[in-house]
Amino acid sequence: MKTIKDSVHDHIEVDGVGRALLDTPEVQRLRHIRQLGTVSFVYPSANHTRFEHSLGVYHLASRALDQLGIEGKNARRIEAAAILHDVGHGPFSHNVEDVIERYTGRRHDEVDDLLAEGEIAAILEEHDLDPERVAGVVAGEGEFAGLVSGELDVDRMDYLVRDAHHTGVPYGTIDHGRLVRELRISEGRVVLDEGNVQTAESLLIARALMNPTVYSHHVARISKAMLRRGAERLIAVGEVTPEELRRMDDHDLLCTLRECDRTERLADRFFRRDLLKRAVWAELPDVPDAVLDLSFDLLRRHEREIAEEAGVDPEGVILDVPGRPRIRESTSRVIVNGEVRQLEEQSPLVRTLQQAQINEWRLGVYTEGEQLDAVGRAAERVLALETDGALVSDVAPGLRTTLDRFGP
Amino acid sequence: MKTIKDSVHDHIEVDGVGRALLDTPEVQRLRHIRQLGTVSFVYPSANHTRFEHSLGVYHLASRALDQLGIEGKNARRIEAAAILHDVGHGPFSHNVEDVIERYTGRRHDEVDDLLAEGEIAAILEEHDLDPERVAGVVAGEGEFAGLVSGELDVDRMDYLVRDAHHTGVPYGTIDHGRLVRELRISEGRVVLDEGNVQTAESLLIARALMNPTVYSHHVARISKAMLRRGAERLIAVGEVTPEELRRMDDHDLLCTLRECDRTERLADRFFRRDLLKRAVWAELPDVPDAVLDLSFDLLRRHEREIAEEAGVDPEGVILDVPGRPRIRESTSRVIVNGEVRQLEEQSPLVRTLQQAQINEWRLGVYTEGEQLDAVGRAAERVLALETDGALVSDVAPGLRTTLDRFGP
Amino acid sequence: MKTIKDSVHDHIEVDGVGRALLDTPEVQRLRHIRQLGTVSFVYPSANHTRFEHSLGVYHLASRALDQLGIEGKNARRIEAAAILHDVGHGPFSHNVEDVIERYTGRRHDEVDDLLAEGEIAAILEEHDLDPERVAGVVAGEGEFAGLVSGELDVDRMDYLVRDAHHTGVPYGTIDHGRLVRELRISEGRVVLDEGNVQTAESLLIARALMNPTVYSHHVARISKAMLRRGAERLIAVGEVTPEELRRMDDHDLLCTLRECDRTERLADRFFRRDLLKRAVWAELPDVPDAVLDLSFDLLRRHEREIAEEAGVDPEGVILDVPGRPRIRESTSRVIVNGEVRQLEEQSPLVRTLQQAQINEWRLGVYTEGEQLDAVGRAAERVLALETDGALVSDVAPGLRTTLDRFGP
Amino acid sequence: MKTIKDSVHDHIEVDGVGRALLDTPEVQRLRHIRQLGTVSFVYPSANHTRFEHSLGVYHLASRALDQLGIEGKNARRIEAAAILHDVGHGPFSHNVEDVIERYTGRRHDEVDDLLAEGEIAAILEEHDLDPERVAGVVAGEGEFAGLVSGELDVDRMDYLVRDAHHTGVPYGTIDHGRLVRELRISEGRVVLDEGNVQTAESLLIARALMNPTVYSHHVARISKAMLRRGAERLIAVGEVTPEELRRMDDHDLLCTLRECDRTERLADRFFRRDLLKRAVWAELPDVPDAVLDLSFDLLRRHEREIAEEAGVDPEGVILDVPGRPRIRESTSRVIVNGEVRQLEEQSPLVRTLQQAQINEWRLGVYTEGEQLDAVGRAAERVLALETDGALVSDVAPGLRTTLDRFGP
Repeated sequence: MKTIKDSVHDHIEVDGVGRALLDTPEVQRLRHIRQLGTVSFVYPSANHTRFEHSLGVYHLASRALDQLGIEGKNARRIEAAAILHDVGHGPFSHNVEDVIERYTGRRHDEVDDLLAEGEIAAILEEHDLDPERVAGVVAGEGEFAGLVSGELDVDRMDYLVRDAHHTGVPYGTIDHGRLVRELRISEGRVVLDEGNVQTAESLLIARALMNPTVYSHHVARISKAMLRRGAERLIAVGEVTPEELRRMDDHDLLCTLRECDRTERLADRFFRRDLLKRAVWAELPDVPDAVLDLSFDLLRRHEREIAEEAGVDPEGVILDVPGRPRIRESTSRVIVNGEVRQLEEQSPLVRTLQQAQINEWRLGVYTEGEQLDAVGRAAERVLALETDGALVSDVAPGLRTTLDRFGP
Repeated sequence: MKTIKDSVHDHIEVDGVGRALLDTPEVQRLRHIRQLGTVSFVYPSANHTRFEHSLGVYHLASRALDQLGIEGKNARRIEAAAILHDVGHGPFSHNVEDVIERYTGRRHDEVDDLLAEGEIAAILEEHDLDPERVAGVVAGEGEFAGLVSGELDVDRMDYLVRDAHHTGVPYGTIDHGRLVRELRISEGRVVLDEGNVQTAESLLIARALMNPTVYSHHVARISKAMLRRGAERLIAVGEVTPEELRRMDDHDLLCTLRECDRTERLADRFFRRDLLKRAVWAELPDVPDAVLDLSFDLLRRHEREIAEEAGVDPEGVILDVPGRPRIRESTSRVIVNGEVRQLEEQSPLVRTLQQAQINEWRLGVYTEGEQLDAVGRAAERVLALETDGALVSDVAPGLRTTLDRFGP
Repeated sequence: MKTIKDSVHDHIEVDGVGRALLDTPEVQRLRHIRQLGTVSFVYPSANHTRFEHSLGVYHLASRALDQLGIEGKNARRIEAAAILHDVGHGPFSHNVEDVIERYTGRRHDEVDDLLAEGEIAAILEEHDLDPERVAGVVAGEGEFAGLVSGELDVDRMDYLVRDAHHTGVPYGTIDHGRLVRELRISEGRVVLDEGNVQTAESLLIARALMNPTVYSHHVARISKAMLRRGAERLIAVGEVTPEELRRMDDHDLLCTLRECDRTERLADRFFRRDLLKRAVWAELPDVPDAVLDLSFDLLRRHEREIAEEAGVDPEGVILDVPGRPRIRESTSRVIVNGEVRQLEEQSPLVRTLQQAQINEWRLGVYTEGEQLDAVGRAAERVLALETDGALVSDVAPGLRTTLDRFGP
Repeated sequence: MKTIKDSVHDHIEVDGVGRALLDTPEVQRLRHIRQLGTVSFVYPSANHTRFEHSLGVYHLASRALDQLGIEGKNARRIEAAAILHDVGHGPFSHNVEDVIERYTGRRHDEVDDLLAEGEIAAILEEHDLDPERVAGVVAGEGEFAGLVSGELDVDRMDYLVRDAHHTGVPYGTIDHGRLVRELRISEGRVVLDEGNVQTAESLLIARALMNPTVYSHHVARISKAMLRRGAERLIAVGEVTPEELRRMDDHDLLCTLRECDRTERLADRFFRRDLLKRAVWAELPDVPDAVLDLSFDLLRRHEREIAEEAGVDPEGVILDVPGRPRIRESTSRVIVNGEVRQLEEQSPLVRTLQQAQINEWRLGVYTEGEQLDAVGRAAERVLALETDGALVSDVAPGLRTTLDRFGP
């Protein structure tokens, strides 16, 4: 057994299949991928990596398995999935995930190919585990998969408290000890025991508060958009293949951006933290449906049109349209009066948090400071935004925005 | 200037009128009044007192005044109110406040009489402050009073984070540094600056989560009800006058309960943590309006009727009916797009939290373990509760409850 | 199994004999005894009690037993001793321990009488444990007793980190997780495993830094001396018997001091934090050996002589002579190169810390502010101190001190 | 004024010259240099960078300047030096500093050339500051330089507490608030006020405990030696110039190591955390003086001789000889009885800590696992170590060590 000191969980004990997997190149690679990508431009202390997060998820998974009395192969499978759940991440975590998915068809939790070969496959086999089923758990499928990948999963418990520790923003400071202790299995599903409606709510609230404050802070979104633009260029000019991009770490991506003629300027801005600014920041109801559903190619075309209409270099305009907010049915389940209930039945708060997600949705158009106004006006016309041409100069000079409905 | 080490704010500097007031008997008395009363029966580390809380409120008030550029007499008045804002508390803080109010007509924030005489009055006068106006600020009246007593006040900021530190429950861990930094004055009102809708929400959420988990935990409510019963007895038998009760500290109340024949048994149970149990725990819609509006005397009569019907000693039955949840308009204000807005306009969350307060409301009937069933059935009949006679044995054996609507 | 939330160890699970003992009056009484007595006059947040500390010691003991693979009756005995180790404390913990010992012959860790009867005895018997042997462990005797009462015991681990948490002074923040994990049993002794010389040193250093900063801060010593004086008076005038004093809690002692004519003034000063001041603060080499060895009665006589010579009321002079610093052989043991060694052989630091203890020793003479000079001069003569008559006005006006050798 | 959220100091306000310097490429580059280099191989959460540390140093410097009443140009110079004090670091902070110094003659605190030109020079000039004098403060010269570079400097205060936060090792958790508050200027020197002998000791102790546990942990030393070996190769084969190496960031160095034929294997081991092992770990008294004074070239020759004698590839043997422990006179000064004293006069602890530094000194010879024994024996002979040929198999199989004098 190996004991590792962690800034969040103090001592983490790694054993068996978890310990063996720890030394594989795929897991060690996570030491070089920042957990929060470009969020460190907003919160400079947020330099933690997917590696310590994976250790933390393994740690909480082990405690949850103990708590639930799950043993043997079922437990080993969950432990393996816990330590491996993030090996599919590309450089800067979620920052270039969309680019990778567009070209390879894979998101970060689709790791069956990575687990099917090499050292990982060998280790799983030694421990009598089927790589495909472990990959299934990472993707949220199979028995007890909800522990690692679900609404009450230990992944979220670890990242909320870890991100709070490293950013200094306290909203993520959940009571993970209680959450793990109160887990139960009911008909194959992970649920929280009697008396834990607030416990379940607190997890959703923590995420709801961390989201706009940390994960979707506009500075993080702008720098992410710049990085994504750079990654697209690298693929477009043949400097890297999509599959190579997927397996890069942060160092590779940054060095390659610096070395490639077509991305050198962007890299330079990135390293100087000389970021683009918002020309538009529009709320969901003010964005025509058609814009929400634009294909990747059409988005690029719109960017060029906006640049053309504004009379600026198309390289200097980025259109950033997040996906439609998904109003998923919350799958958290809590026992109330001896009966398993969905949290949303029980908690009006959950429904409100789903609404808050819609309110916080923003379409962004980013460009350089001196051309904010021109690009803002052009974007309004090209995208047919209902921004009324209002400039919100108190928030940021020259920013065309529709902030006035719900607040930032 | 005096520097005091605090477990929450690290170093607190006390100066001027604040320092002078610190040494008065009224403020030193707060060293002997636990901040959370009987909550330490649920969270054993929660033994912090109103004294360090008052220091913390003074500290945050000073920082807020700096931030807002308020100086001179206006600042001194707020600082004095900050350090004095809790001198009106009776023993065990809110626990016997209702009893004190019933007999003296004063709640803990009505302190004009305490400030009008003795050392406090002398010190205020020396610093050219009018005791009445300082008492006004404590009660939420006058310029900048919102800093000490309002929805965005430093009182709440301190107690949430302090209670979290001492109970170990993380929900109260707000970002008080940010809250203080983002305060602004707009037309005499304390508001939060642009970009702080989440900041304001986080304060309300923290309280909403701490409330059922800490402040209104059923064990805290039961032991509070026992203490209140004891205090009523002491007054009823003439052992203490209401005004004496109001100025007692925790030691006085506990010793007096132990020494008085009529309360000795209750004190014994209290010291052994041998608490009464819930026979009924009913939700708001299941409680007839008439019960909600019962006068103090009628409540006592109902208790006796329940005991009689159940055939048990009336001393061993407590009926605990909290006031109707007040759906007050939230007064938090935030600047959005350069305009001051009420938080509830901006935040659907706030309205939900008001609803949550209603859902968490409970009427309790407490008695000894062996007579739970008899008292439960009697209370249903006497109070005409719509509990359907359901026993929720999974939660607590013999408990008649209407938990099934919203969860605990 | 019962789970209790703790501000230091998060969740504490109490089970078996530990859980049964928790509900005894003797253990519940610890809720009403402050861990650090009058230290809260220096650090206002330090209001934690012996109750949560006892839970913490039980928690660490359970983890240590797991770690060492100790099970069955041996484990139960240690767990029982852990939860009971402080039931022998009088009011305000160590503050009046000397008075109690003088009259009853018992220090706080001599609890055989308390364990031999009543509920505790019954519970121990039910769990097949011998009260006498459990009391032996509390006193440091018997197998594995070093876990609860020794230089590497979990008692110290808990109090250092708990006192740091509640005072805000970080020096006690040790790595208790590592300390517990690295415990081994070697020839019946508790030792630390290979590679833990620093781990062992850190525990001693933490105490060495907490000692002058927290435990022996002069304000805590003065208020402790006042409380001790009060307790002596209560016994002298027959208000309480020594055995009653031993079983009082903080409320009892404070109320009794307030109610007794002879101690009322002292109680008044205590509640107003109107403490005596130092007239003398002398280092060990400047104090004649004879003074160090004075019996209790002679100390009292010297106090009266000092008062007489100074022409002041003897009630207002307190002579505070701590015991000689005991240069005990450190019993901490660490495995080095596979061999058990005493820490002091290995660590020059340990020897230095013993020296530091000597340097920090101080004799104090306390009195009221206006008579500092007269009492200081009188004490110099009566006690034949070598203070050279020097006044250290920079530190405290009128203070006769011999600070100049080693620092405070 | 800009407010930045920090995980250690909460909110940091940056203003004036500090704010202007923050956006220079030299300071932004520090975002890409890990504060603790390879220590993250031991403590996986320790990924914090020189950037947030520089912010922290600036923050504490500003507070210290306030505290001391230093204003105007003197204050601006210190603030500039605080934010710039680490711009001279090469990749991985101290890890390749020796290599850079050997070829460029510059250590990380010799930054006059970096401050004399470009944006930094322009900004300093705008704020009426002389780059040379600012560089002087970084190097510890000039008025008040001790605040930024001395034994009581804010650099150390920040890194101890920051490294504790990110590694999870609590030993560095000093009371920086108190240290800053108690600073005074006496005859141009930074000293601590009366009553702070323990405060000063605690800073030295924290470093003394962090040193072997964190900074000089053998795994960090081995990986540092591997990185240094790689950097030397890059220079030797002309892949980079020494000056280029000095200005690289972590990404550059790692990518270059991966891309260069001669260092690819080493990089591969580094990324897999497949580190060399200790064949020898010898204490100071067992190492001949001649070995301590070997020049760089002779060290390399000895490495080759060891490899030859052991019959292994010279690439796989690293000889790691730290400099002689410098028993510098401690320059910390504390006011005692109104007089400025050196801490070592006052504190026997300080002298012991200097001795501890000698005890913890180790010479290491590292190689691959299968050839530990052969290389260990060869190194003993070539270096004429007095290791007695003892194998300490309990600590690490095959390790030749002289641990038996003082412990690890």
